[in-house]
Order: sequence, then C-alpha cells, then structure tokens
Amino acid sequence: MSSSEGDNYLFDPELLKNLDWNSMNYAVSPFITNEDPGESWLLIRPLKIEDYDKGYLQLLSQLTSVGNVSRSDFEKQYWNMKKAGGYYVTVIVDTRNNQIIGASTLITEFKFIHNCSLRARLEDVVVNNTYRGKQLGKLIVLTVSLLAKKLGCYKMSLDCKDSLIPFYKSIGYKCEPGNANSMMVRYDAPKADSPS
Amino acid sequence: MSSSEGDNYLFDPELLKNLDWNSMNYAVSPFITNEDPGESWLLIRPLKIEDYDKGYLQLLSQLTSVGNVSRSDFEKQYWNMKKAGGYYVTVIVDTRNNQIIGASTLITEFKFIHNCSLRARLEDVVVNNTYRGKQLGKLIVLTVSLLAKKLGCYKMSLDCKDSLIPFYKSIGYKCEPGNANSMMVRYDAPKADSPS
Repeated sequence: MSSSEGDNYLFDPELLKNLDWNSMNYAVSPFITNEDPGESWLLIRPLKIEDYDKGYLQLLSQLTSVGNVSRSDFEKQYWNMKKAGGYYVTVIVDTRNNQIIGASTLITEFKFIHNCSLRARLEDVVVNNTYRGKQLGKLIVLTVSLLAKKLGCYKMSLDCKDSLIPFYKSIGYKCEPGNANSMMVRYDAPKADSPS
Repeated sequence: MSSSEGDNYLFDPELLKNLDWNSMNYAVSPFITNEDPGESWLLIRPLKIEDYDKGYLQLLSQLTSVGNVSRSDFEKQYWNMKKAGGYYVTVIVDTRNNQIIGASTLITEFKFIHNCSLRARLEDVVVNNTYRGKQLGKLIVLTVSLLAKKLGCYKMSLDCKDSLIPFYKSIGYKCEPGNANSMMVRYDAPKADSPS
C-alpha cells in the first residue's frame, strides 16, 4: 500500500494485521478473524472520510441519535480525531455493495497512573441487524479489543446495558465485583432527539 | 496573566472562571466554588509540570498504583496530553506548603453521534484524606463537571465503586436504569503492583 493510500484512513491499517486472535479462539466458533472474516465479501478496515457516503452514519443511527450531520461536519470531526490521535474507528464493509455494515471505536487515553500507561475504551458498537448469524458483533468488538492489547493498553473498558452483559462476558469482559458502576450526568439536550 | 505564564498550564486557566456553580448550589453547603473555595490557602488550577515536585504523583498513589515515574516520564506524558488536547487535569493546592492535595481529570472525546458532539469523562479523582470536612471532593469533581458543561459536552460519565454511588448521586450523577454497567478486560499487568 502506498503512503498516499494510507493517508486516507483515520489510522494506519497496518495496525490491524497480526492481532492476537489465538487468545480468543475459545470465544469464536467457527473461528474467524478480522483478516479472515469468514466471507470473501467482508472487509474490516479503519474509517475513511468516504464512508460518509457508504452508510456509516445511517448505521450509527441504529444505535442512537446521530442528527443532521453534513459532510463538512463529518470531515471536520474526522480531522479532529485524526489530529488528536487515539481514535480507532473501525468498520466492516460489505464489498458487494460498498456499504458499512458494522462499526466500533477504540479510544486510547494517556494516564499518569500505572507508569504513565495507556488505557482503552470501547465505544459506539453497532452491526447492521440484517447480517445476523455471522459473529460480526464479536468480530468488530474483538478486532478493536485486540488492537488495544497490541497498542500496550493495560485495560479496556466499556459501558453497557444490562441486556448486553452476557455478550461481553462471552468475549472476555468482566463486571468487577463492587466496581462495575457507570454513572452519568446529562447537560443541554443534543440537537437530535434521543440521547444515549 | 501573561501568555508565558499561561503556557505553563496543561490547559488555559481562564476556562475555570465563571463556571455555573449556581446550578449546583443545592449540593454544596456551605456554598463554595473553585474561585472561592472557603479557605484563603486553597487554590484550584490546571496541572503544571512543576506539580511533579509538589506531590501530585504521591497523591495519585492514594488512589491506585502509580509506579516509578521519572520526571522525564511525567513530562513526556504531560506533553502527550497537551498535544492531543481534551485532557483537563485539575488540582487543588495547599498554598501554605505548596502541596497538591486534590485532583481530578476531565477528558473530552469527539463523537460523530449527536451532531458530532463532545462527550466528557471523569477520571482519577483523589483528595488527600487529611483534609476531610472541607467538601474538597465535591469541589474538585464539580469544578471539572461544570467545566465539561461550559465546554458544551452533552454528557459526562464516570465509573465507580459501589461505595461511591451515594457521593456522586449527591452531586447530580445518576445510574440510568438498565444502563449503568461498567465492564472491563485487563491485558498485561502494568509494571506497578495493584491495578485499578
């Protein structure tokens, strides 16, 4: 891949190579990986600006309110993320129709604790619900989880609804006893209608 | 304040002025704010590199394992945060002995959802436990929470132990029914001994 092609991605696609899938083989059956996702028409790669036209925001709207995001808004936020660093938005593409059918985001955070370590967070996981039965949820979450491991993060955390606990448990996430609460405060309502 | 002084802070100290404390007056009694913290010797300000020598890491070690962080490690991570942006590490100083006695961190995240909004997280809250009874926990958490509001974040979230739920409820945070779980996976052990 030429560097000019690499420049089109939110992060270096080379980072998605040789992830430690063997550590998760108990959880994935039949065994698939981001590099061998079980169907020849599935492609897992970093987000590109062009994904604005490939249904990325429409996919996110299955998860929560997205609002009316113009291409200019999208590009501005893409470059905010790329400039800041630490944003690993990863997508699944159906290459037959060039549509984004799954996505998740790894965000890394600099810490002073734990020897100035790196912490990871999982955000905005969504899979088009017409593609059930292909383990795409596991595939997209484990891809970014194994990327966090590769980047040297000491832990990765997520917030989720009660109904999703069994799913995340099945791929190695835990509720730590006495320390598994997520709390929040909401400020001004977003312009769109249903917050998450 | 000259711009050269401003350059010494992790973020612009002007941001901590005129926060919306009136919205929290039900929770703070007697009423104090970051600009009027109740004692003339208390100062709330952004982190500085010099805080390495003022007990900032020793304070963090009351919270979790910090490890053996050299001044060079600390400066490197400080500049990583400053360059990335979105890191608002805020401290309470006892100006009588120039020691850091409280700290909390606001981290902001760029999102595509909710009209390309900004989300906030609360991290690494700690107050020296010899300074009890001065509402310093409320003071340091609300300072960064009101900063998140001022920055236009649509929500601010935190992960906490069961024992801290009443404290955070008392200052406006909620466990949303059916959606208040924090899960995690740990990777290689950090160099230091007790993770958090």
